[in-house]
Amino acid sequence: MTDDDFMAQALREAHAALAAGEIPIGAVVVLENKIIGRGHNQTERLRDVTAHAEMLALTAAANHLGNKYLADCTLYVTVEPCVMCAGASAWAQLRAVVYGAEEPKTGFRRHGPLLHPRTELRGGVRAPECAALMQSFFRAKRRQG
Amino acid sequence: MTDDDFMAQALREAHAALAAGEIPIGAVVVLENKIIGRGHNQTERLRDVTAHAEMLALTAAANHLGNKYLADCTLYVTVEPCVMCAGASAWAQLRAVVYGAEEPKTGFRRHGPLLHPRTELRGGVRAPECAALMQSFFRAKRRQG
Repeated sequence: MTDDDFMAQALREAHAALAAGEIPIGAVVVLENKIIGRGHNQTERLRDVTAHAEMLALTAAANHLGNKYLADCTLYVTVEPCVMCAGASAWAQLRAVVYGAEEPKTGFRRHGPLLHPRTELRGGVRAPECAALMQSFFRAKRRQG
Repeated sequence: MTDDDFMAQALREAHAALAAGEIPIGAVVVLENKIIGRGHNQTERLRDVTAHAEMLALTAAANHLGNKYLADCTLYVTVEPCVMCAGASAWAQLRAVVYGAEEPKTGFRRHGPLLHPRTELRGGVRAPECAALMQSFFRAKRRQG
C-alpha cells in the first residue's frame, strides 16, 4: 500500500462529507499498513468547530489502540490541516502527516513548524482530486448563496 | 461577575481534573454572565490527546447553543491554551480568551497570533493559584517516578 492508496481512502471519507453537505475533507490513520481510524468533517451536523476529519480520525485511532500516543501512525488527510489539527497531531506524536491539497489560507504551515519534531510531513498526494472536491463544494455554495 | 469569579469556576474544574489524576487544567465558557460550558482535562481517562479542558468546554457550549460559533462567548481557562486549543478558539470566533498561568513551553503565544482577529486575549487572572495547582501535580508525579 502506498501514500496514493491511503489517500484514496481519505478521499472516500471526503466524499461522505460532501454527500452530507459538509466541507469535503476526509482523513484516515494508518498503522502498519492498516487503517485504524477514519473521519470526515462533521462540523455542520455536530455544530461543533472541533469536529474536523483529522480530529475524529485521531480520536478513533486512539480509541482503537487504547493509547493516546500514535507514534507509529500516519495521518492521511485530503487537505492541509489547520492549526487546531496540527496541534492535535503534535500531541499525538504521529510518525507522519500526509496531506493532499494545499490550503494557503487556513492551513497550519504559514504559522511555522507546529507538528512534533519527529513527525514527517508530506504533501501533494492526489492533490488535484482533493482540491477539485473542495472547489466543486464551494462553487455550489456560491450558486446557492 | 468578574474575570476573577469565572476563573474561580475554571479552577473548580481544574481541581476535578487533579482529583482524577489528570493534569489539573479547567475551563468554562461564559455567555452574558452565565456559564454555558464546562470542561477539565481528561486526556488520561479518555486516552485521547484532544480531550483538553478547553476543547470539552467549547463543545459543551456549542451543544448548549446549537451553534458552532461562539462569537459572544468568553473562554476562561486556568493555563495558557496550547496550539490545538487556540486553533479551536479561532474557529469558534470567541469574543475573548482569558487564561490564568502562562505556559511558556506548550502555550500557543510563542507561535504568534493564532486566535481570531476579533478575539480579545487576557492573561494572568488568578495566575498564582492556577500555577500552584500545576506545580503540585508535577512535583507529586516526579516523587512517584
